[in-house]
Amino acid sequence: MSDEYRDMWAGLGLDLPKHDRLLALLNEVYPPIYLEQPNRPEGLAYFDFVIGEIHGLRVKELLDHKKKGGKVFGTFCLYVPDEIITALGGISVGLCAGTDFSEADAEVDLPRNLCPLIKSFYGFKRGRICPYFEATDLVVGETTCDGKTKAYEFLGGMHPVYVMEVPHRKNDDTRKLWRTELDKFIVEAQKLTGNRLTHEKLRENVRLHNAKRRALQRLNALRWKNPTPISGKDALLVNQIAFYDDPSRFTASVEKLVEECERRVADGVGVFPKDAPRLMTSGTPFAIPNWKLHHVIETGGWPVVAEESCVGSRYFSGLVDESPGDLNGLLDAVARRYFDIHCACFTPNAERMDDIVDLCRKSGARGVINYTLSFCTPYLVEARHVENRLKKEGIPVLSLDSDYGMGDFGQLQTRIGAFVESL
Amino acid sequence: MSDEYRDMWAGLGLDLPKHDRLLALLNEVYPPIYLEQPNRPEGLAYFDFVIGEIHGLRVKELLDHKKKGGKVFGTFCLYVPDEIITALGGISVGLCAGTDFSEADAEVDLPRNLCPLIKSFYGFKRGRICPYFEATDLVVGETTCDGKTKAYEFLGGMHPVYVMEVPHRKNDDTRKLWRTELDKFIVEAQKLTGNRLTHEKLRENVRLHNAKRRALQRLNALRWKNPTPISGKDALLVNQIAFYDDPSRFTASVEKLVEECERRVADGVGVFPKDAPRLMTSGTPFAIPNWKLHHVIETGGWPVVAEESCVGSRYFSGLVDESPGDLNGLLDAVARRYFDIHCACFTPNAERMDDIVDLCRKSGARGVINYTLSFCTPYLVEARHVENRLKKEGIPVLSLDSDYGMGDFGQLQTRIGAFVESL
Repeated sequence: MSDEYRDMWAGLGLDLPKHDRLLALLNEVYPPIYLEQPNRPEGLAYFDFVIGEIHGLRVKELLDHKKKGGKVFGTFCLYVPDEIITALGGISVGLCAGTDFSEADAEVDLPRNLCPLIKSFYGFKRGRICPYFEATDLVVGETTCDGKTKAYEFLGGMHPVYVMEVPHRKNDDTRKLWRTELDKFIVEAQKLTGNRLTHEKLRENVRLHNAKRRALQRLNALRWKNPTPISGKDALLVNQIAFYDDPSRFTASVEKLVEECERRVADGVGVFPKDAPRLMTSGTPFAIPNWKLHHVIETGGWPVVAEESCVGSRYFSGLVDESPGDLNGLLDAVARRYFDIHCACFTPNAERMDDIVDLCRKSGARGVINYTLSFCTPYLVEARHVENRLKKEGIPVLSLDSDYGMGDFGQLQTRIGAFVESL
Repeated sequence: MSDEYRDMWAGLGLDLPKHDRLLALLNEVYPPIYLEQPNRPEGLAYFDFVIGEIHGLRVKELLDHKKKGGKVFGTFCLYVPDEIITALGGISVGLCAGTDFSEADAEVDLPRNLCPLIKSFYGFKRGRICPYFEATDLVVGETTCDGKTKAYEFLGGMHPVYVMEVPHRKNDDTRKLWRTELDKFIVEAQKLTGNRLTHEKLRENVRLHNAKRRALQRLNALRWKNPTPISGKDALLVNQIAFYDDPSRFTASVEKLVEECERRVADGVGVFPKDAPRLMTSGTPFAIPNWKLHHVIETGGWPVVAEESCVGSRYFSGLVDESPGDLNGLLDAVARRYFDIHCACFTPNAERMDDIVDLCRKSGARGVINYTLSFCTPYLVEARHVENRLKKEGIPVLSLDSDYGMGDFGQLQTRIGAFVESL
């Protein structure tokens, strides 16, 4: 990395030696996991570049945006509405949360028996290791799960945090409350950005994010072809980068990759042998650099062809209705789109079971790896619903829970290998 | 137990051999923990009798009530408003949740890494070991924590369950939602009981439950005297029985005990030596028969003089304003009383820290044992807030987390002993 970046990181107050170790680690694991895959689409070069610049170029863009008076919003959850942030001239970035590198820093304040994603993001802030975090003007939290809800309190002692109430049941009253939460967030975001939300601006940004979602839908649907034109690991990478890259540039890059994959499909070119046993995952999110599960599966020779996950189908499946002719109507559509995400924080959450079955059928997966981050109570409990439903449908399922450590790598290989043999 | 009870349990569909083992276990642990305490107030005879009849007389009362067309509501949380249930002619009982006896039955459906209270109540239902559960017409759940929220889904497959949305932030919008939740619950409860809620009936029942809360306030305040006239274990027992006994009879029994304890205080009679190091607890609830922590502490010679807990001060501290002259106003008062309980499910929850400090000062406790049930994320995370605040106030604090197993009994003795020595 250039000296320019080092100055930038120092200016953000990062713990430079620790941050160096983090980047060194990332540079060490990325090539064997990613670059050594055979026959990757050329369009992935852009995404490799983004990873190579992970704490460099994009962070610089955020700071340039701030120099021009723009604001940066950090998020940890799909329920925070991106289109409102960008319509107000803000940039929305999903923050670092995928490694146990920051665990020790987190456990100064947080209990050990807590979801690794929460410990990861908290430790990144407390240990001053994440330039994205330091570049944000406001972190927007939500009450989706107990762990995040309570961790935001401690985060609020170190950084500006605004928390949105996400209800846990879906009915007319809670939909109304959620709509009110959007209004309140808009007031806060307008104050921070100094801009006013208009129908025109919001519609433009609804289109921007819908375009991104459509591009991801197309790319992810191509994975269902046989042979699959792109590895699950690479598709996961694209789905991960969606959270923090510039939306327009990202969409254009995904579309280029889509075209290439379409050509591959037409030519019968794949990255795994035709008819290799295909798997899909369901469950909790995969934040960068949490590639462990996909790496285990695909190293075994079995392509991952879909993720029912916040980093996956839950992120890009729903579109916002662009048609309402006034701001209020358009905000209703935005509220509806987000409230209709099928997260395990809701009770009941039966629609999610339908989503998993549907995605399994469409993707041609022969089995589902139902993956839960350790101590994620909503998904851990809901795993049994997933198993019951899939068994009823005659779809093989393997439930796993894991954290960000590498200690269970061999165990995962063994369990998944046995599962595939049983298919 | 009489044959009459065995027939009753069989009629409820209990697993009789398993239920026998549970009662045998309870009959084995109760005498050494409770009856062998020296110099207990005579008024405790009533509560010993209630425990002796734990699955007998009170269950028979519930069934007699049902025979006359009455309904029984089961609850697991302070947020379910008792006065509404009893005003509609229902009986409200807090259900069994304090033992690992039912853990194996729970883990058929629920993950191991889950709060023992949740596993306990779920296993009681799944294993058909709890006559109270089988006597309820409706279980009223709530969205206070992820674990319960999701476990109610599975419970709903075995038993009628109604879930109330408890929001996680306190503001005008969520207060309004909570008030609406009360209205919706009333509709449901009216349908079930066939009765209509009136101002007169509600006021009468607000007074009934306020009287119970006042009696518990008086009893628990007497524990702060030096020497303390009643052991923490015994006071805990009374606080536990509050959840399922007949409210009028219970209040009368507590008042009798209060008078006796007042005489003891006047006479300088106590159950521990004057000036023995006094402790209080803060944290998660103690469901029957979870007496482990108090037993460890008091066996060491240190009286427990207060519990900041759902089975403790959070249960009886707040009163409902009895003055509103119409039903709507009185329901507003009921809603307010419940919403003002300081549970860790809310963010932020700073008032709880004030409550703990206040209770510590009033009770003369020299230190706080901050107790959390394993895997209870809201209280586990909030424990650090408790520690931070108490350290700032100069109050010694020891944080522990534990489940219902006896494996850590010795470890708890060692840790608490070291803590008391450090005071």
